[in-house]
This record gives sequence, structure tokens and C-alpha cells, in this order.
Amino acid sequence: MAELWQCQGVTSTPGLVGAVRQGSLRELNLAVVLGRIAAAERPPSRADLAAETGLTRATVSAVVEDLITGRLVTEADPAPRSGAGRPARGLVLAGDGPAGLGLEINVDYLAACVVDLAGRVRHHTVHRADLRPHSPADALARLVDLAGRARADATAQGLTLAGAALAVPGLVDDAGTVRLAPNLGWRDVPVPSLLAVHPPLTDAVDGVPPLVVDNEANLAALGELHADPDGPASFLHISGEVGIGAGIVLDGALFRGARGWSGEIGHIPVSPEGRPCRCGGRGCLEQYAGQEAILAAAGLAGADLPADTAAARLAELAGSGAADVLGALREAGTALGVAVAGVVNLLDLDTVVLGGGYAPLAPWLRPPVLAEISRRVLTAAWSPVTVRPAVLGADAAAVGAAGSVVRRIITRPAGWLARAG
Amino acid sequence: MAELWQCQGVTSTPGLVGAVRQGSLRELNLAVVLGRIAAAERPPSRADLAAETGLTRATVSAVVEDLITGRLVTEADPAPRSGAGRPARGLVLAGDGPAGLGLEINVDYLAACVVDLAGRVRHHTVHRADLRPHSPADALARLVDLAGRARADATAQGLTLAGAALAVPGLVDDAGTVRLAPNLGWRDVPVPSLLAVHPPLTDAVDGVPPLVVDNEANLAALGELHADPDGPASFLHISGEVGIGAGIVLDGALFRGARGWSGEIGHIPVSPEGRPCRCGGRGCLEQYAGQEAILAAAGLAGADLPADTAAARLAELAGSGAADVLGALREAGTALGVAVAGVVNLLDLDTVVLGGGYAPLAPWLRPPVLAEISRRVLTAAWSPVTVRPAVLGADAAAVGAAGSVVRRIITRPAGWLARAG
Repeated sequence: MAELWQCQGVTSTPGLVGAVRQGSLRELNLAVVLGRIAAAERPPSRADLAAETGLTRATVSAVVEDLITGRLVTEADPAPRSGAGRPARGLVLAGDGPAGLGLEINVDYLAACVVDLAGRVRHHTVHRADLRPHSPADALARLVDLAGRARADATAQGLTLAGAALAVPGLVDDAGTVRLAPNLGWRDVPVPSLLAVHPPLTDAVDGVPPLVVDNEANLAALGELHADPDGPASFLHISGEVGIGAGIVLDGALFRGARGWSGEIGHIPVSPEGRPCRCGGRGCLEQYAGQEAILAAAGLAGADLPADTAAARLAELAGSGAADVLGALREAGTALGVAVAGVVNLLDLDTVVLGGGYAPLAPWLRPPVLAEISRRVLTAAWSPVTVRPAVLGADAAAVGAAGSVVRRIITRPAGWLARAG
Repeated sequence: MAELWQCQGVTSTPGLVGAVRQGSLRELNLAVVLGRIAAAERPPSRADLAAETGLTRATVSAVVEDLITGRLVTEADPAPRSGAGRPARGLVLAGDGPAGLGLEINVDYLAACVVDLAGRVRHHTVHRADLRPHSPADALARLVDLAGRARADATAQGLTLAGAALAVPGLVDDAGTVRLAPNLGWRDVPVPSLLAVHPPLTDAVDGVPPLVVDNEANLAALGELHADPDGPASFLHISGEVGIGAGIVLDGALFRGARGWSGEIGHIPVSPEGRPCRCGGRGCLEQYAGQEAILAAAGLAGADLPADTAAARLAELAGSGAADVLGALREAGTALGVAVAGVVNLLDLDTVVLGGGYAPLAPWLRPPVLAEISRRVLTAAWSPVTVRPAVLGADAAAVGAAGSVVRRIITRPAGWLARAG
């Protein structure tokens, strides 16, 4: 087993190795076993876990006991078995232990959801309101209200909220300050200090930050990654809302860029001297394929529909053959395809996921996107690119936010167990 | 020390761990010590190495002895020292052991160079010829001739060519087949089998492939990474030739994409319904900022200058204030800036390196590129992007190719030592 945790020693600070060893051994065993249970296609038995990890049966049993006591793991009902002997009991992630609180502030709605360790959504509320006229402090106060209701519901279900993540449609720095959210009109909004005047949103758990603020497109991409474990490990996830954001997932991890501000696909120029954009540039993709641009081209500008209602309404009209809407979606899909073709030429990703408001519109956006890819991507002739709707819909960012909290517990369960003990 | 090599055990195949251990220990010690010597700012002593790696003095001495015997490391002249006692002798990479052969086929030249373990260029030949009228077999035969001369020169200098890498301006698959090189007119060219009719280019060394074929922009970016060890760990390197390629370096490693075909920045659309491109698309960056586009805009089309001569000539004319050339460079820089702004919005890279034919033109390309970045990149106001010329010039791809061979020996020296012993 030593090889599993001594890898910690491969650092440039050998003096620390000895000090880390004893504490790490148990922590790493917990994380390894829990990670296997989380990733397993079928509930593994203790014997399966011993075989897979190289740990002894006795160690696995002790670790599993800790995980069960700490409400991280539970025994599944044994599968019926035709052969002789008592079937071994499989282990699954618990549905009554820690959970994550996912929050979202977007241009025209607030959302709160609770996801348990097994990834199930246990609570979900969306509050529709145009937030642009409101101050950040006011918007956050409304969100705290929504979060309080989510927490009460989680408690009633026997869950403990171990941490929260907040999705915002903008650029967030390491301190949780929203540096810029053009479509909300936010600039340099210090979210954590604005929230500090309210009671805490969740319980304190060692190793789980009480609140992480992140870009909504990033969290939506993470939500998609975890919602579709059999999907590709690398993909481009595009969230099409009023703004357009992308999450770039490479080898199962989010690529955040040099300073955490990657994914601003909405501001890729698709017509360099074209329509002016809120960002100060011109011809940004957002001005051709963002939700307001689609509504305007479809003759529905000013209809003032909330984000996912607008997408649903457009899908309904397109489905009934409305020529204006079909034309608007073709135009938006072509602009999106121009930007996506550039991204695929640059990054050589083979999967593009249409998420957020784009998910219900995928039947109409996909053909022009594919046409631009096949026309412009150098490798398209022999190496096709898959374009498909997201598994999660408009909930992806809030679900991904909550999921990011439970992923943190799964990868480092010791903090939660210390509290539970 | 165990922690250094047991990290190998963190795999999903625990059954293999025991078998790997004994062989790996020596190999890993060799690699760790050699890596430290390669990365050190000042030649480290044996005592420095022991302190840094956590290995015992005796182990370090034995490993260093092996490295010296195998001509990978040599003792530097001791630095003068004012204090008491005999100064410890520093260790440096050897200049008379293995070397890498770097080759390049581009549209209008062939190149061969030899780089020693310490990264010094020991041989460099460029053969100018328009290769478009020639068959791939013919072009490769000329290259073999160039490689033979490089090998003779290396041998005369006491070096052994341990492997070769070939840079091509196109997309290469895992088998070394050039799937597409639009500017050379190559499609599905099986380079390794075309070279198999010639004598080997280098000596056989265990663990070093005799020939790696790779995209020239990738190898140029690697060349830049290793030529500038104090530079940023993440950057976009753009090779501006007849075609335009990019190498994306993230955290000190090349990002190759899902299938190894990343970096086709030349085919990012900058004017979606604009000029037709050789790739079949329209409005690709290459048609506005590639070398032929710049020459045409400057009224120098058909001047038929070889790649680096063309860049040098343009730089000379721009330096003397030629209005046509200045206008052409401004236009090209603007198109390049539009594409780069999209890339920075997407990837959040903070450094852009102008390489290849762009390096000598950087004084004129940089201002319009920066202007487009500042106009279009969301984070530009508070988080500036550096745009600078490459440290290496037009040689970057061949030097990077040769460097990739010596990097392989530095990271896995055991194969070379098995041969040398």
C-alpha cells in the first residue's frame, strides 16, 4: 500500500515528507476507497476494493467502517445470486450524509439546488426576476433567502450542507470577487464580504470552503462532466444564455487558463468590424448567437421572456415551423459554428456540447454548426467532431456548483469525517 | 528515498508494482539527479543534489559516477571561493555525449541541426528550395542527404546522434504519417516508410525513437520553452510562415489536443465570408497574415523570396519606412490580433510569442496585435497580455525538434547509459 500515499513525497520539499506521512496514510486510504466506490459502475464489495486498490482486506474493512459510520457510504441491497454462498454486499455512496449547495445568479433568475453525495438533485428552486435593475447586495440578499429555504429542505431530508458554490455569469478572481459580469452590469463586486452580513449558508466542514464563487460556464461544464460519466473526458461545453460562456474540459478536468478566466467564447470575434458589444469590442459571437440576438432576429425582441422560457419558446416556434425563428436559429448556428470551428482548429477537441439555453435549441443549431465545422476545420474530413445537446439543461450551472462541493468531499473525505466523528 | 520511485505505484494495475520496483529505482534515481542538474541555475555539487533530492550522499555519488561515465554529465571548473576549504565541484550537462538531430521540411527550405545535451546548437544547415514541385519521396531524399552531413559533423565533434525529430508544416498522426500539409500539397504521406529505404539517420538508443515526426509549430513552441527557461510556463507561440501555426504551452508542457492536431490558428476565421483559403474554408487568418498575404499587400507578390529572407526583407523595408510595407504589416497585425484576442478570451493565456517569420517583424506586428487585444479581451483592462518576439528565430522548429530528442534522454537516461555501457 505504501506506494499509494508516499507519492506525496515527490515534491521539492523532502524535509516535509516525514511529517506528512502518518497523517496522510489514513486520509489517502479513505480517499482511495471512497473514490473507487464513487467511480464504480456496479456497487463493489470489500473484496473487490481490496483487489482493485492493493490494500489488504483488513485495511479495506476498517476504512469502509469509517466511511459507513461517517455517512459517506452505505451498503446496497445484495443482488440476487444464483450460485452458492452468501452474496457479498455492494457499497454505494450514501444519500443521507453531506450534500452540496449550488447557487446561481444569472441575468434573469436566481437558483438554488442541493445535490447529495451520489449526485442526486434533492432540492431545486428557481426564482425568476430581472436582476439588472438590482444592486449586487440586493441580488445576494434574495439569493440568501433562497439558500435558506434549500437548507431547511435539506435538513428535513436528513442531509447536511457541507459547503456551497455560487455560479455567476462573469469573471471571478481568487478572492471570490466578480471582476466583471457585463450582462449583469457588475464590476468588482466582493461577493464574500457582501454575504458576510448574512448568517452562514452551510455548516462548517474542515477542508470544504464555505463558499466558492465561480464562473457559471465553468460550473456548468463540470456539471455535465459528472452527469455523464461515460461521456468523453475532453470536450467544449457552451452555455448559451444572454451571454455565451464555454467550459473547456481536458482529460476530465476543467481548464481554467493562466488566471482562471478562460472560456469567454462569447467574445470571440466572428465579424471583426460588426455589431458593437457590451464588452467594448465589435462583432463578438454574443451579438450574433446570444439569446437576445436570436430573439431580435426572430422578431421577438422585447418579449422579455426569462432565459429558459425564451429557449423553450424558441424551440416551440421552431418546431412548429415558424420561418422567422428558423432563420434566426440558422443565422445564430452559423455564427456559433464559425467560432466553434476556430476553437476546434486551435484545440483539436472532438466533442462540442450545446448547454444551457442552447440545449433545447440543439436540433436547429446543430446542422449549421456542423456545416461550419466541416467547411473550416482542417481535420474534419477524416476526424469527425460530435456536436450534441447537454445532458443537463438550464440547471447545469447550479447542479455543477453543488456537485463541485460533493466532489471535494469525495476526493478529501477526512475533513467531513473529522466533523462527523 | 522510497517516495521518489514508489510514485510509480499509483496506477490502476497494482499487480505490476512489485515487478517494476527493482528496475525503476536505479532508473528513477538517474533521472531525478540528471533532471536536477539540467534544471539548476548554477552547477550543483553532489552535496547540493543530496540536499535537494533527499537521496543519501553515497547514492548521489554513485549516480553521478554513472552519469559521468556515460558522458551525460561532466564536472564544471570550480568557482573561485573566498572562504576556507576546497570548493565543491559543480556538475553540468556534458557537451560530448548524446545529441539530438532536428530536421525540418517547410515550403521553401529544408533544415538540419544538432543540439547537444546542454541545449547548444552544434551544427545547423539550411537548404533553400521551393519544395512544392517535388514529390514527398524526393523532398525526403534531399533531407536524408542534409541529415547525413549533420551526422558526419556531429561525429567529428565527438557527439553521438541518439535520435531525430522531423518538423513538418502539417498535421501528423501517431504513425508519423503527414495527414495533411496544405501549403506543401501533401496528403497522407507515410514519412517513416518513405525514409525506410535510406540508411538510418541516427544511432539506435533504447528508449529514444529513431524518428519522431511532428508539427513544426509544436516543435517551435517546445524549442522556445527550452530556450527560455526563465520564461512563462504557459504561452501561445505563433509561427508565422507561409502558413501560420501555433503551439499552446500549458504549465510547461505542449497541449496537443484530443488527437494531436491542436494549434491550427492559421485557419481561425477572421473574416468568415472573406478570401478563400487552400484549406477549403474562407476568411482564414492565413489569408490575411500569412507571409504570402503580407508580401502581396506590400506589393511584393511573386518576389519569390525564401521564408526567412522574406521576413528579413520586409523588416528591412519597414525599418526604412516603406509605406506599402508598413501598411501591409499593420493590416496583418490587425488580423492576427483579432484571432489572438479570440484565443486569449478562450484560453486566458497571458503571453503571446511571435515566432518564426514573425520574430523579425515583431516591432511592427506587436502594436496592432496589442490594440486588438486591448479592444477585445474582456480581462485586458486589469490583466495585461505580453506580446513579444521569440527568443529563437526561424530556426525554432529544427532546434526544438533536436531539443525534444535530448529532453527525452534527460528525462529517461537509462536507455542511453545501457548503450554507453
